[in-house]
Amino acid sequence: MTKDIQPTVKTKLRRLPKRGSYYRELIYGILDEAFICHVGFVVDGQPFVIPTAYARVDDCLLIHGSAASRMLRALASETEVCVTVTLLDGLVLARSAFHHSMNYRSVVVFGKASIVQDEREKLDALHAFTEHNIKGRWQDVRPPNENELKATMVLSLPLQEASAKIRTGQPVDDEEDYTLNIWAGVIPLHLTTGKPVADEKMKDGILIPEYVSKYERCQS
Amino acid sequence: MTKDIQPTVKTKLRRLPKRGSYYRELIYGILDEAFICHVGFVVDGQPFVIPTAYARVDDCLLIHGSAASRMLRALASETEVCVTVTLLDGLVLARSAFHHSMNYRSVVVFGKASIVQDEREKLDALHAFTEHNIKGRWQDVRPPNENELKATMVLSLPLQEASAKIRTGQPVDDEEDYTLNIWAGVIPLHLTTGKPVADEKMKDGILIPEYVSKYERCQS
Repeated sequence: MTKDIQPTVKTKLRRLPKRGSYYRELIYGILDEAFICHVGFVVDGQPFVIPTAYARVDDCLLIHGSAASRMLRALASETEVCVTVTLLDGLVLARSAFHHSMNYRSVVVFGKASIVQDEREKLDALHAFTEHNIKGRWQDVRPPNENELKATMVLSLPLQEASAKIRTGQPVDDEEDYTLNIWAGVIPLHLTTGKPVADEKMKDGILIPEYVSKYERCQS
Repeated sequence: MTKDIQPTVKTKLRRLPKRGSYYRELIYGILDEAFICHVGFVVDGQPFVIPTAYARVDDCLLIHGSAASRMLRALASETEVCVTVTLLDGLVLARSAFHHSMNYRSVVVFGKASIVQDEREKLDALHAFTEHNIKGRWQDVRPPNENELKATMVLSLPLQEASAKIRTGQPVDDEEDYTLNIWAGVIPLHLTTGKPVADEKMKDGILIPEYVSKYERCQS
């Protein structure tokens, strides 16, 4: 993998360029941490933004869904797509209303998606979706059967035109506002896991797997 | 406010319609809980999806930013917009790979945004942005001055064409899979706050306000 993604007219940040990055490792880190992406596409001039699960495999972002899905059918027809992933890290309280902000890490990807047709690649993709959310889960599940594979459409979007935007740290106030008697700082935000809730319909005697009881993607 | 929003061709759910809702109170509850929305718009046929802060005031969704922002300038020109808000509530572990899912609550809004020109309304909007994220904050901050007001563009999107989509609860597996010896259940996900971090540049002797130390929007 190359170190940097080349900025383009679409991904070059015009506003606050210091928050931008085209560093592939950083972009992939954000993609690997988040759970959902927002997929933007256009049908008859109308934009749609749909939240959905995804996974990254090498230099591609994969999404999937029902083969009957309006979104996937639209995307599969070689239309332009924009996929955005956002992690919210904190509320930034400045002394002035104007400089209030949020800490975040986001990635925007542009491109055209293509259908993953090859059965082996498709199965690898389904493996990636499961493992992206819960590492270790795939070995335990009943794998997809032929009908399920047919009913599922997988789309692949190359990570060729992408950028990250990041804000971290404390508020930046106007110089003269630092003398004001106003509390300023950051309220950190984290996605955390609660105690796992077993399905009541589960057979007796099934132990909770470690990848659930010691789930590590988020704070607990 | 009317109880329901009328479904349209765009908002009527075709896939899994039982997950859909047009109940205004439910839609507004989701909008009032989340911190960021993803704004979708089209420039020269290309979709863009940009994460941004927002607030709801009555039956309008407000977004704001620099008057020089590419996104806001595009939206202000009476173009079609789609704004999506998503709350992630859990990872759903089914017995089959196929029925793995996520619990979530999302809202999709379609419409055209218009610029809030009136200075009083604009100030009310800035009040709403601050209070949406941190209730109680506005009374303490240095309010926007004339230059800051001029530099800020506020857009209002009527909540006329909108729908919610929600998944809750345990996995739904194929009947024959319930006999399998596979753990199934939900890993709940919550956005939580960490310990507030005061700005090091803050003057000595400023007490942390209760709306920060006892911040209640998220779990802590």
